[in-house]
Amino acid sequence: MGSRKIPLAKYLFTRLRQQGVHAVHGVPGDFTLKALDYLSPAGLKWIGTCNELNAGYAADGYARVRGLAALMTTYGVGELSAINAIAGSYAEWVPVVSIVGTPQRRLQEQGKNVHHTLGDGRFRMYAEMAKHVTVAQANLINERTAAEEVDRVIGASIKESKPVYLELPADMVTKEVDAEQLEDSIDQGENAVNVEEEGTVAEELLRRIYEAKQPLLLVDSGGGLRQLREEINDFVKVSGLPTLVMPSGNTMVDHSHPNFYGVHLGPVGQIDTMPYVHSADLVLALGPMFSDTQTLSWKVVPAKEKTITLNKNYLQSPVYKSGESTDINLSRLLGTLTKRIDRSRLNTPDVRSLGNFRTVQPPAYAKASGVNLDDPIDQRSFYLRLSSYLRPNDTVVLGNATPKLGGCDLVLPPGAQMVASGQWFSMGHMFPLTMGMSLAREHNHQSATAGRTILFDGDGGFQVSAQELGTVIRYHIPMTIFLINNAGYGYERQIHGMHADYNNLAPWRYTELARTFGASAVQLGVDEQQTSGLSQGLSADEKGAAYPGRNYTIQTWRDLEDLLANEEFCEGKGLQFVDVRMGKFDIPEKFRDVFARARESLG
Amino acid sequence: MGSRKIPLAKYLFTRLRQQGVHAVHGVPGDFTLKALDYLSPAGLKWIGTCNELNAGYAADGYARVRGLAALMTTYGVGELSAINAIAGSYAEWVPVVSIVGTPQRRLQEQGKNVHHTLGDGRFRMYAEMAKHVTVAQANLINERTAAEEVDRVIGASIKESKPVYLELPADMVTKEVDAEQLEDSIDQGENAVNVEEEGTVAEELLRRIYEAKQPLLLVDSGGGLRQLREEINDFVKVSGLPTLVMPSGNTMVDHSHPNFYGVHLGPVGQIDTMPYVHSADLVLALGPMFSDTQTLSWKVVPAKEKTITLNKNYLQSPVYKSGESTDINLSRLLGTLTKRIDRSRLNTPDVRSLGNFRTVQPPAYAKASGVNLDDPIDQRSFYLRLSSYLRPNDTVVLGNATPKLGGCDLVLPPGAQMVASGQWFSMGHMFPLTMGMSLAREHNHQSATAGRTILFDGDGGFQVSAQELGTVIRYHIPMTIFLINNAGYGYERQIHGMHADYNNLAPWRYTELARTFGASAVQLGVDEQQTSGLSQGLSADEKGAAYPGRNYTIQTWRDLEDLLANEEFCEGKGLQFVDVRMGKFDIPEKFRDVFARARESLG
Repeated sequence: MGSRKIPLAKYLFTRLRQQGVHAVHGVPGDFTLKALDYLSPAGLKWIGTCNELNAGYAADGYARVRGLAALMTTYGVGELSAINAIAGSYAEWVPVVSIVGTPQRRLQEQGKNVHHTLGDGRFRMYAEMAKHVTVAQANLINERTAAEEVDRVIGASIKESKPVYLELPADMVTKEVDAEQLEDSIDQGENAVNVEEEGTVAEELLRRIYEAKQPLLLVDSGGGLRQLREEINDFVKVSGLPTLVMPSGNTMVDHSHPNFYGVHLGPVGQIDTMPYVHSADLVLALGPMFSDTQTLSWKVVPAKEKTITLNKNYLQSPVYKSGESTDINLSRLLGTLTKRIDRSRLNTPDVRSLGNFRTVQPPAYAKASGVNLDDPIDQRSFYLRLSSYLRPNDTVVLGNATPKLGGCDLVLPPGAQMVASGQWFSMGHMFPLTMGMSLAREHNHQSATAGRTILFDGDGGFQVSAQELGTVIRYHIPMTIFLINNAGYGYERQIHGMHADYNNLAPWRYTELARTFGASAVQLGVDEQQTSGLSQGLSADEKGAAYPGRNYTIQTWRDLEDLLANEEFCEGKGLQFVDVRMGKFDIPEKFRDVFARARESLG
Repeated sequence: MGSRKIPLAKYLFTRLRQQGVHAVHGVPGDFTLKALDYLSPAGLKWIGTCNELNAGYAADGYARVRGLAALMTTYGVGELSAINAIAGSYAEWVPVVSIVGTPQRRLQEQGKNVHHTLGDGRFRMYAEMAKHVTVAQANLINERTAAEEVDRVIGASIKESKPVYLELPADMVTKEVDAEQLEDSIDQGENAVNVEEEGTVAEELLRRIYEAKQPLLLVDSGGGLRQLREEINDFVKVSGLPTLVMPSGNTMVDHSHPNFYGVHLGPVGQIDTMPYVHSADLVLALGPMFSDTQTLSWKVVPAKEKTITLNKNYLQSPVYKSGESTDINLSRLLGTLTKRIDRSRLNTPDVRSLGNFRTVQPPAYAKASGVNLDDPIDQRSFYLRLSSYLRPNDTVVLGNATPKLGGCDLVLPPGAQMVASGQWFSMGHMFPLTMGMSLAREHNHQSATAGRTILFDGDGGFQVSAQELGTVIRYHIPMTIFLINNAGYGYERQIHGMHADYNNLAPWRYTELARTFGASAVQLGVDEQQTSGLSQGLSADEKGAAYPGRNYTIQTWRDLEDLLANEEFCEGKGLQFVDVRMGKFDIPEKFRDVFARARESLG
């Protein structure tokens, strides 16, 4: 053919770059080393993490921002370490390309006793495991088909918003493949959606919307919708339909829409959303993840017979075609709805029960006598107080612990987003995820209105993957961390074993972590015995370390007020770490019901 | 029946306690919480680690000492995080009982959208994955058979020296099972070994041993032999056969036997063992793990037609029954051989080429001018120098990096053991493994001649699981750590990418880790700018932390000599952490061949 040839690894990485991926996360291993040389020539940055699970979590966060991410690990030991993160990406509709460097083909064919195998000649079992948690797989053993396989698998990841699995044998890295294919865009296996039928669907949806007395738009981040934020917000705005989000869907809807009524938590929310949901006669559920954990064990899930579920690629409802799934292109369908909807034909729903979540005051501050600044910070008022700390375009991440409960109370400024787990809830996920998200937003950081990246994490979750603080520092990734420090697995304590030692943690000196992991910050005037009082220190003049980490310990409302009055802190540049000392058994009173139900479900 | 009943969880934990397990490793999760309450009543200690992978690694180390360990994780997120460790235990013949707390049966049967599932109703896929890396599985959903199932699975783990998988639904924890079964010992599915045939095997082996001109006993730690150390050493001693160990088999043979000739590394060892192996006409290979990584890509593997492989449960050789596997009880067979062997009938082998590894001097010290104390510590002489630091009954663990190369040079005093990977080579494995081993040896620590637990780890490997230093401190687990700090993945660098950034690491301040993770040590007189010089500090008077961590930084031979002259350090009580600064590109010259072969095998 005489076509231009390039090494397979270059082809793969160029393809990723074309899809908006600018960084690959992972840990080097002998079977991946040669491939890594092709990252930089393809315009990709390598983000080396301390271990593969954390790399997988970071890639998951990265993909939530950019719509695709890549993870590179080594055969066996590396990929298995990351498989929990891949499964999490699957559960929460996150497109991650998991690339595994495998032993050269000859050794595999001969069934040699290669390290990282079990020594019994089985070479395909890791791929078998990966099949359970990825939607497409390819073993790149044939240079004639490798380029097509790469395209097929990447395309499937983007289309399905799910992880995929690519095996790259070490001896295939430099094999030459056709470069010209790079000029064609990747076929994402566009649904053979019948545009005419989609038109019918739109008419049917509009008809039902016009008919409904109490319609509800219930938005979540599942179903592959994460990249349709703009289309969703346009529809929310133009339609004026009463809109709620699931806790994990908070990232999808701007809080500034007057028809947005906050997070649907039913009776445990600041305002009970259940009366409205009960009264609703039509629920358009966008990308719902109705797991027990965010539905009070399904108590707050809207009635099926009123619900139409809209995912990126299909619509499904018992009230439409008897529950048969209908292929759609939701991006286009939402555009059609937004264009066609006639607000004059909508009934005026009774939304009085939904109140205004924006005006709920933190109880500690709402007392007649005013806030007692010497009182300890508590879970109930902490997040409510922090709403005014948030700025436009901030990204807020809630750790899988008490933060994902209390954090729902935050009122987000325009453009701000909030990420929380809705299905997977893996402890330790959220800190590396935040790292990946911040990295993915890198180009934004240049802009003055970029917004900050802010993590609220529990101490138990943070200990799972804490060493990546070194990675944050190494790559100068900006991040503000509020560590909700209640000296244990606070969430688990409330479910079972309130005073059991297994719910306790090793007592770390959290504000020393940044320095230990290489930041140039120095603790000034910190008294280890003093568990209260705002402590801060910064010195950027240490040799060899150019990235400052500012550390703070807060325990009372006064500490918090001092912190929020600190402009340098609020600016959110670099790494900021706040050790928030909370009561060991403190939770927002309303959430006792959440734990009671979790306890029940243990049987 | 009227028999005494106890809760299933109590039955399970009591069974483990009966097998010598006194601690369970893991991370709590909602589906495991209720079970954890039954640990203490069964006499088991809970060791809560920061994450599940590390718990799995620690359990692996624990089982290497005690012959069985238990890991307890939660459904999905927990078990998948640990699956790399389970696979490693499988690869290296380590019996670990992996107990997974799963959702209550009703929710599984109804296919509910439970958190930690993928939200698609698939509940059995994690169990499917586990099947690939465990030899027996049971889902304890039936109270009438649960006790038997527990016994069957634990028995299989002990018999096969491999991990097994137990699912314990949350609602089964308290279900009552027959307690009387606890009075019967667990049936380990004793091989139906024909004792008469085993006698024939013994005669045949003796005949071949008497016939051989150049016999060799080559010992490794695979094949389920780890609990047969005594029987093996008796045979080594009584038979007088020339004996070598594979690098991962160093733990099996006492170095004091005069017929022991060190580690079989062929041309890259201190003394080239290959001439003898070439000349050998009979090789008894005990539990060999002939992976590429420890055989110079199979270059030093003895010829098949001369080799008889003896594993715990079977014998196999092309020269015996045409390679057909024969069931044996190796413990008994070794006893028979030891009893019957008549040394007067042995030929006298020519062992001159094997030399005496005990007398090899560290080159840096062997110079005519003596050691230059201001010279930097190098990989070649470091380990050789440390032989005299070792004491009887020490346990030495070599990290999966340069330590597993250089560490082979250590000469072990009587009773001392050395653990190194032979098959799995997962980076990050060895630090938590050491923690588990030290814990398992706990009762020994009381004794004056107990020996210390000493880890040599690379910085790259250590960063993978570093947060468990907090766990070491929390549970007061004694350990001495030599961190071989060459600011990167030194092993990978030598294979590919010598100057590539992907082989670099985030620069941590390692000697501050212990304090940050909660030890009561304080760095006294440490100058961060000073990369050389022995620095040490200790203060045990800090509030809330009762476990001291001593930190040292060494870079020159003088630093090392000072350290080894420090009695407190040499005593090895508590946590001791030595940051050993090594040259970035320094490796023992002989090992260049190891890396050249690893490079080749990338294709």
